[in-house]
Amino acid sequence: MTYNNQKTEKTAKTATKTPKTDSSKAIKKPVRKRANTRRSAPVKIIPLGGLNEIGKNLYVFECSNDMFIVDCGLAFPDEDMLGVDIVIPDFSYLEKNKEKFRGVILTHGHEDHVGALPYLLKKINVPVYGTRLTLGLVEGKLKEHGILNQCTLNVVQPRQTVNMGCMGVEFIRVNHSIPDSCALAIHTPAGIIVCTGDFKVDYTPIGNEGIIDLARFGELGNKGVLALLSESTNAERPGYTTSERKVGDSFRNIFMSADDRRIIVATFASNIHRVQQIIDNAEISGRFVAVSGRSMINVMNKAIELGYIRVKAKTLIDIDAVNSHPPEKIVIITTGSQGEPLSALSRMSTNDHKQVRINPRDLIILSATPIPGNEKLVGKVVNELMRSGAEVVYEAMYEVHVSGHACQDELKMMLSLTKPKFFIPVHGEYKHLQKHAQLARRMGITEDNIFILGLGNILETDSIDMKITGQVTAGAVLVDGLGVGDVGTVVLRDRKRLAEDGLIIIVASIERETGEILSGPDIVSRGFVYVRESEELMVQARELMRDVLEKCVASNTREWGMVKNTMRDEMSDLIYGQTKRNPMILPILMMID
Amino acid sequence: MTYNNQKTEKTAKTATKTPKTDSSKAIKKPVRKRANTRRSAPVKIIPLGGLNEIGKNLYVFECSNDMFIVDCGLAFPDEDMLGVDIVIPDFSYLEKNKEKFRGVILTHGHEDHVGALPYLLKKINVPVYGTRLTLGLVEGKLKEHGILNQCTLNVVQPRQTVNMGCMGVEFIRVNHSIPDSCALAIHTPAGIIVCTGDFKVDYTPIGNEGIIDLARFGELGNKGVLALLSESTNAERPGYTTSERKVGDSFRNIFMSADDRRIIVATFASNIHRVQQIIDNAEISGRFVAVSGRSMINVMNKAIELGYIRVKAKTLIDIDAVNSHPPEKIVIITTGSQGEPLSALSRMSTNDHKQVRINPRDLIILSATPIPGNEKLVGKVVNELMRSGAEVVYEAMYEVHVSGHACQDELKMMLSLTKPKFFIPVHGEYKHLQKHAQLARRMGITEDNIFILGLGNILETDSIDMKITGQVTAGAVLVDGLGVGDVGTVVLRDRKRLAEDGLIIIVASIERETGEILSGPDIVSRGFVYVRESEELMVQARELMRDVLEKCVASNTREWGMVKNTMRDEMSDLIYGQTKRNPMILPILMMID
Repeated sequence: MTYNNQKTEKTAKTATKTPKTDSSKAIKKPVRKRANTRRSAPVKIIPLGGLNEIGKNLYVFECSNDMFIVDCGLAFPDEDMLGVDIVIPDFSYLEKNKEKFRGVILTHGHEDHVGALPYLLKKINVPVYGTRLTLGLVEGKLKEHGILNQCTLNVVQPRQTVNMGCMGVEFIRVNHSIPDSCALAIHTPAGIIVCTGDFKVDYTPIGNEGIIDLARFGELGNKGVLALLSESTNAERPGYTTSERKVGDSFRNIFMSADDRRIIVATFASNIHRVQQIIDNAEISGRFVAVSGRSMINVMNKAIELGYIRVKAKTLIDIDAVNSHPPEKIVIITTGSQGEPLSALSRMSTNDHKQVRINPRDLIILSATPIPGNEKLVGKVVNELMRSGAEVVYEAMYEVHVSGHACQDELKMMLSLTKPKFFIPVHGEYKHLQKHAQLARRMGITEDNIFILGLGNILETDSIDMKITGQVTAGAVLVDGLGVGDVGTVVLRDRKRLAEDGLIIIVASIERETGEILSGPDIVSRGFVYVRESEELMVQARELMRDVLEKCVASNTREWGMVKNTMRDEMSDLIYGQTKRNPMILPILMMID
Repeated sequence: MTYNNQKTEKTAKTATKTPKTDSSKAIKKPVRKRANTRRSAPVKIIPLGGLNEIGKNLYVFECSNDMFIVDCGLAFPDEDMLGVDIVIPDFSYLEKNKEKFRGVILTHGHEDHVGALPYLLKKINVPVYGTRLTLGLVEGKLKEHGILNQCTLNVVQPRQTVNMGCMGVEFIRVNHSIPDSCALAIHTPAGIIVCTGDFKVDYTPIGNEGIIDLARFGELGNKGVLALLSESTNAERPGYTTSERKVGDSFRNIFMSADDRRIIVATFASNIHRVQQIIDNAEISGRFVAVSGRSMINVMNKAIELGYIRVKAKTLIDIDAVNSHPPEKIVIITTGSQGEPLSALSRMSTNDHKQVRINPRDLIILSATPIPGNEKLVGKVVNELMRSGAEVVYEAMYEVHVSGHACQDELKMMLSLTKPKFFIPVHGEYKHLQKHAQLARRMGITEDNIFILGLGNILETDSIDMKITGQVTAGAVLVDGLGVGDVGTVVLRDRKRLAEDGLIIIVASIERETGEILSGPDIVSRGFVYVRESEELMVQARELMRDVLEKCVASNTREWGMVKNTMRDEMSDLIYGQTKRNPMILPILMMID
C-alpha cells in the first residue's frame, strides 16, 4: 500500500497543495466566467449509480484524455433480490476507459459512497483520494479484501485541490452524519462543477468538525458555477435539518432521568459524532462505556486512533466486564438500530447476546429512524426488548436522532450560494430528484437547464450548452457470497419461484433403447407442502407421471426433452388444480445404456 | 343462506330487539354493580388473535355453557412467511367447544376482523351477527367461498342487544374508517365487559354515520364496567385523530387547483366515507367518476346498493369510457394505495393498465399512508407515476389521509367514560399494548388490574377478581392457495433456504446389488448460479460425487441413507469453500434391481 497522508503529501505524485486563499489559482486551465461565449473541449458527466435509487453512488467526470470518478458506493439489495448480499455499480465503462482513468475521489466514508471500492480496485488499480477518516475506514475494507498493500491512498484536506489531468478537484468541508465529509468543486475547461456529496448545514457541529464552508461555496458562486450536482435525499422535507447537538441535549435529559438503570444506545457505527455525544454524557454522569457489535468496535477503534473520538482511558471497559459493575454505572453502545437480525441489539432482544441480558433495569435508546423497508424489523426488536421489561425510547418519542441530509431550505441555500447555470439533482429516487428539480425551478433555474438523469446517461457540456448526448453501459451487479455478477435475472427468477411455492422433482431411470422404466418415477418435494399431509396427491402424481412415461414408450417417442416438457405440464396442471399453487417442476430422467 | 335483516328480525331466533332507551333491561341475568361482593360464575376471555400482532382479531367469551367470539379476522403474512397468502387464527379451541359455541359477533367489516370467517364457517356453522354493511361485505366473501347458502347472517343495529345464552351483546356505534362500526358491551353474569373494536372519535363524521355513542359509554361507566378491552393501534400517537371531514377539505382544494388535469385518487376500497368525499368533490367540480380495481368495484357496488354511498346516476361512468371524455372531466377512484404490485394503480404506474395511460395531465392522490412494511412498494409506485410526468400527492404533503384509530387522548376518553375496574389493551403489537397500559396506569388503574395477554391465555373473572388461569391452543394457520395449515415450519424453512441460495440436486442410478453406478452422477441446480458461469465448479462437483459413490461401493457400504449424507456434506463443503454460499443439497439415488 502506498499511503500518502498530509505529512508525506509532497511526495504524492498527483496530490498538489494549493494556497488556502484561492485554490482555483492552482488549476492549470483558467476557469471561464459564465459570460464567456467560447466553447470549451466537451466535459462529460456520467452517473453510473446513485440516481433513481438510494445507494451505489458513482459519478464519472471526463474531459479530453482524462477521467476520474466521484465515489464508489454499494447499495443494499431490494426485497426481490433474494439471497443477494450487496449491489455494486457496473464498472464496464471504467474498464473500457482504463487508460484515461486518473483516480477515485471520495466525498465521505459511508457505504453508499465507498462500499464498492474494493471491487473496483481489484479490477483497476487507480489512486484513491479522500479525507483522513474516509481513507481510514476504506483501509479496513481493503484489508478485509486482502488488497490493501497494492492500493494507493492519498489523504486530502478541505480546501485542497488534486489534479486529474486537465481537471482539478477541490475538497470543501460540509457537515454530515460522519465527520470529514466534503463537497467537491471540479475545475474543468468548461467551468466549475460543484458536487455537494451528502451534506447538511450544522452551525453547531460536534467536536473538531468545522461548520460547512459556506463562504467558499459563495465565492465559487460569484466566480461563476457552471453546474451543481446536489444531493436530494431530504428534498421532500421542508425547513432545516436539526443540529446534531440537539441529540446531545436529549441524551443529557434521558441520562439524567435514568436513575439506577443501565443505558443501552443503538446507533449507526459510522455516526461518530453521535457516539462522541454518548461518551460525553456517559462521562458526565459517571458511567463506564462498553461497546458491542463488530462494525461499532471497528469504527470506534479507527476513530479513536485517528483522533476523531475523544474518550478518557478509564471510561471504556470491555463488554465482558459489564456485569461486574452496577447497572447505573454502565452505558452500552451497540449496533442494530435498524433491527438487523444478526446485530448485537437484535441478539440482546432475543436473549441471545453473550454478555447482555435485557431486564427491567435497562433503558434502551434507538438513536436512529428506520430506513424505508426496515420499519417492521425495528418494530420487532422494540417489541422484544419491551417484553423483557426494559423501557425503550425510539422513533420520534424524544429527539434522539436527527438527519444527516439537507432539507429543502438548506438545498435552497446551496442553490443560492452557488448560483449554477445548470442543475443536476443527484442521490435519490426519482421522486426526490423531481422534488429537488421543482425547488430549483422555483429559484429561477429554467426548465431547460435542469437535468434529471438516468444511469449511464452521458451529459455533455462545452461551457455554453449542456445536453444528453448518449448512453454507456450502467446497472447493478449483484454480489452473493464470493460471486460478483454471477447471480442474474434467471437465478433470481428461480429463487423467487422456489421461495413462493417450492419445487417438485420427478426422477426416473429409463433404459435408453427400450424406454423401459427401470426405477421410479419417484417424487421429491421441498418447500411445497409437508409431504405426509398430501400423500394422496403424491400417489396420484406418481401414477400420472408413470402414465406419461409409458405412453411415450408405447408411442415410441424418444425425444426426451419433449417427454420432460409433457411431464412438467401435466404435473403442473394436476398440482395447480388441486392446490392452486405453482411449484417449480423439475423432471429428471436418468438414461441407462 | 338465512339472512335476517332488520325487517325480518322478529323471525330470527337468537337476535332480540331491546328498547332503545335502556338496552340492558333486555338481558336475562341482572348486571351486578361493581360494589358487589358476591362472586359470579366465572367468565372467560380468551384471545385467539389480535394480540402482539396487527390482524387476525378473534376474542372468545365464555361463561357456563355458552361461548361466542368477537370478530374472526385474518392477518397478512410476515416477510418470512414465503409464498403464504393469508394467515388465520387457529380454530382448534372453538372446534373442541362446538356444542357451546353460540355465534360470531362482528364489530366491523375490515379484513383483520372478518377475513377468516369463511374458513371458520366451513368448519363450524354458527350464526353471525353484525351491522348491515359489515354483513353485506361478509356476504361477498361467503359467496366466493361457495358457502353463502348454508350460513345464517343476522343484521343488528347499534343499541340493539343479541343474546348469547347467559350473556348479552349490545352493539354501540363508534367511528372508524369504515361505516357501521360498533363497539360491544357484553353483559355477563360477572358484569359488563366493553370491547371497543376499532374506533376513533369523529365529531363531524361523513354522510349518515352518527357520532360515536359517547353517552352510552358514559352510562355504562356509571352503571359499572367490569372490564374494558380497548384497541391500541395508535397508542403511541399523542393527541386526537383528525376528523375524516378534513380530508374532504383537502380534496376540495386539490380538485379546485387541478385545472384541466385528470384526477386519480387511490385509497382503501373499504374506506367508504373517503370514496363518498371523492364522489362529492367530483360532482361539485363537474367531473365524471370511473372506478378501477376489483375490490374497489365490489365494495362500491355493495355500498351503493345498501345506501352507504350516494352518487348521482350520471356521475358514474365505466372505466372503458374514461378516454372519451376530456381529462378535466374525469376522476378515477382506484385501489393500490399500498403499492400492491398487482393493483390497478401499480399497473397504471408501469403502463400496464388497459384503459389508463399516465401522462403529464394526471394529478394523482395517494389517499393513505403506507402500512409499516409497505413503504418501499409505495415509493416505487410514486417514482414510476412521476416518471410519466404526472403530479403525485402522497404521504404528509397535504392532509389527504387521516387515521381511523383513536390516538392517546381518545383512548383516555374511552377509559374516562367507561371507568373499568380491569383493563385489557388489545389490537396491537406488544409496544402498542404496553403504551396503552401505561396510559391506563396514569389514569389511575392499578398495575394489578391491567392485563397484557398472550394468545391463548385464559383470563378469568368472577366479578371480584380477574386472573390468567390457563392456556388454550392458539396460533397462526397459514393459507397458501387452497391449502389451509399444510404449510408449516419445515416448508417455510425450506423455502427460505431455497430463496437465499437455491439448490443443487445430485442424481445417480445405482445397481442395488453391486452398487455400480449405472448413470450419473448428474448435477442439476436452480437458483444457485447461472450454470455456464461455473462450469468448472460443476465438473469438480461431479467428480467429487463419483468419488464418494465409488468409495462406498469399494468399502461395500450399502447404507444408502448414510451415503447420501456423505454426498451432502462433501458437496456442501466444496460449494461453500468456493462460493461462500449454502444452497440446499439434494442427493437422489435411483436403485435399479
